[in-house]
Amino acid sequence: MKIYKANIVYTQHPGSFDVLKGGCVAVEDGRVVGVASDASHFAVPDAEVVDYGDCLLIPAMNDMHVHASQYRNQGIAMDLELLPWLANYTFPEEAKFASLSYADSVYRRFVRDLWRFGTMRCVTFATTHYEGSRRLMQLFQEAGMGALVGKVSMDRNSRPELCESVADSVRHIEALAEEFGDPEGLVRPIVTPRFIPSCTPEMLRACGELARKYNLSVQSHLSENTDEIAFVRKLEPESRNYADAYLRYGLFGQQPTVMAHCVWPEDEELQLLKENGVMVAHCPTSNLNVSSGMAPVRTFLDKGIRVGLGSDISGGHDLSIFRMMAYAVQVSKMYGKYCGGAPFLTLPEVFWIATKSAGSFFGKVGSFEPGYEFDALVIDDSALNYDNYTIVQRIERFIYLGDDRYITHRYCRGVEIPEPKV
Amino acid sequence: MKIYKANIVYTQHPGSFDVLKGGCVAVEDGRVVGVASDASHFAVPDAEVVDYGDCLLIPAMNDMHVHASQYRNQGIAMDLELLPWLANYTFPEEAKFASLSYADSVYRRFVRDLWRFGTMRCVTFATTHYEGSRRLMQLFQEAGMGALVGKVSMDRNSRPELCESVADSVRHIEALAEEFGDPEGLVRPIVTPRFIPSCTPEMLRACGELARKYNLSVQSHLSENTDEIAFVRKLEPESRNYADAYLRYGLFGQQPTVMAHCVWPEDEELQLLKENGVMVAHCPTSNLNVSSGMAPVRTFLDKGIRVGLGSDISGGHDLSIFRMMAYAVQVSKMYGKYCGGAPFLTLPEVFWIATKSAGSFFGKVGSFEPGYEFDALVIDDSALNYDNYTIVQRIERFIYLGDDRYITHRYCRGVEIPEPKV
Repeated sequence: MKIYKANIVYTQHPGSFDVLKGGCVAVEDGRVVGVASDASHFAVPDAEVVDYGDCLLIPAMNDMHVHASQYRNQGIAMDLELLPWLANYTFPEEAKFASLSYADSVYRRFVRDLWRFGTMRCVTFATTHYEGSRRLMQLFQEAGMGALVGKVSMDRNSRPELCESVADSVRHIEALAEEFGDPEGLVRPIVTPRFIPSCTPEMLRACGELARKYNLSVQSHLSENTDEIAFVRKLEPESRNYADAYLRYGLFGQQPTVMAHCVWPEDEELQLLKENGVMVAHCPTSNLNVSSGMAPVRTFLDKGIRVGLGSDISGGHDLSIFRMMAYAVQVSKMYGKYCGGAPFLTLPEVFWIATKSAGSFFGKVGSFEPGYEFDALVIDDSALNYDNYTIVQRIERFIYLGDDRYITHRYCRGVEIPEPKV
Repeated sequence: MKIYKANIVYTQHPGSFDVLKGGCVAVEDGRVVGVASDASHFAVPDAEVVDYGDCLLIPAMNDMHVHASQYRNQGIAMDLELLPWLANYTFPEEAKFASLSYADSVYRRFVRDLWRFGTMRCVTFATTHYEGSRRLMQLFQEAGMGALVGKVSMDRNSRPELCESVADSVRHIEALAEEFGDPEGLVRPIVTPRFIPSCTPEMLRACGELARKYNLSVQSHLSENTDEIAFVRKLEPESRNYADAYLRYGLFGQQPTVMAHCVWPEDEELQLLKENGVMVAHCPTSNLNVSSGMAPVRTFLDKGIRVGLGSDISGGHDLSIFRMMAYAVQVSKMYGKYCGGAPFLTLPEVFWIATKSAGSFFGKVGSFEPGYEFDALVIDDSALNYDNYTIVQRIERFIYLGDDRYITHRYCRGVEIPEPKV
């Protein structure tokens, strides 16, 4: 048993922080045994005690929607609308991942920077390329970090070199599902039809079958933008709505599913999200940057729909999930102001969304309750904590003002993760 | 003459960046002589050449609205509405500035951190306290950085210990106007009625007279929040609107004036802003955090109203004006989406707003055109520039992803500014 001492902050429930000033987290076999104010509580005299003094100890971050393959384009071309942005920046960039050495260089940097910002688990898009996607999975494995990596499936409405046959797509995903076949593995493939406009009905059907056959999770995009929704309505006239189209192809909760954005959900789609246990990856910077609109996150919570946060690089510009928390509060404030007055998200709510709620997609991840995998960050915020701040104020200041400099140690499944090599 | 070599980026006009890859800025007596692609252009053989290699060289930042006295509260209590936030956090904090030693400790940190983020000029609120406000001015002078510092005037609707008599307010501002009397000085007092709800008509009238008598600039808040506007209407029944109330007291452009926020301006107020050359300090993070709403910045530009950016600590949470640029673009995107479709602000537009447009409040500041004071930052973005990015993409990435670590040298009026002591 290992016992970590520090100021412990986590969220069992969205309404408030669980705070233990100068407390202890006991960890065995990678999982939390319990939290207590004193090490003697655990009655294990030979337990190794790691004392992080006045630092904060919190659950690690989970990024529920990010495009590893767009990392090179982070923070550029923000003045473009969605379509020219895709055509002139995103698709040409993704095409470069036909080169394994290019993929390797970008993905190494991506994994290292996720580490820097304390994101120990992610759900990410790669590209359609098998070799590059496999390389990304290997890099996560080498790093010891958790990831569901999507070799993207698409066969229409993109550059020819980014499209593939249904047969190729199936063959490649099957190969990855077999190679990364341990259901308990930290790194697993995730079935990733890019979104309905990019996939023929045959491709979507094949994706649904693959997910079922190999017991794989599913990710895609849902209702990001009003033009996109109109296009899907045209492409899928027999579906009642965008969510129903995924559902009909076996891609909406038949396996664990996360859908990015959901900015413009219809009432019936909200019902489908809830009924099928589909998680929404809320991407607040992307909502703003790509001018999609502001997702109704308070509505998701009120209806019991699962939510996590996503950086959505490179529609989003910032890899830090802490920054996403601040943006999620801000977006909810403007949503309330301009769209009907719903109360905004509070800090413990967004913290819970980013940790325990998001983490549930990976199993028991994102809390320090007994049985949870010990994914944790140690934060030395002494440079921000120059006055008599409370622990909750210190967390709030770190979230709003902090950055990677303040994160001194990172754990995933109980193992301290060193900086991945670039 | 000194010649600075680097990749030069500035904005003469809002529509586009002026970029000179590997160019030179020549500086004499603190002012820019010119920009050229080669040092020989200036024909001064003994000019000292400072070569910043592949770094970016840009105008320094100007923060047009910030509360130095709220610096301790940066990034806390973001879950509160405006009124409990003022009553429970802001006013109690400002009351502490009755202690000169407390003021000194907070203000030192504030000045140092402005420096860190590359803000070489600011327009700031202190508190009602004379000694503390004077100390802040001394600290800016010691640092060599430019500041218009407002000893706040207020005599109603706050805690008794933060209110003062009109006579005291006048006496203290006069003392500061005499002590910091050099009209060319980098540090000057600015007349600062907190806002109409905090000031009796007598106080407002006295402020207007002081500004005229001592030729001082004026700052205050305008139309931040709809409840505040309704309150002002009640307090000032004879004024046509909020802006007109300031105008009637001699506080709306009779001297150079900057008004924070202007989230909900009436058409006639827009006209008054324009006619009187009043600058709006747009504070996008504050707009979001305090749930004020989103200021119509495109409208300001279209009407020829002067605009700068403000961090508005601690309603805003971030001291970086670069971060404000990104937020200003984002806020304009949502404003366009939800409030009538106006085109969003582009990156060169917000850069121009933050530099040349804001800088005009201090004289010829914020550009590298001939005659401009050399306020500049050297940015080593090599960690972000790992691929073949263009200079404009490098600026965009620095604005969206960068932080104080990347700023290696800071100049104000031609003098390199070392890190101020805390």
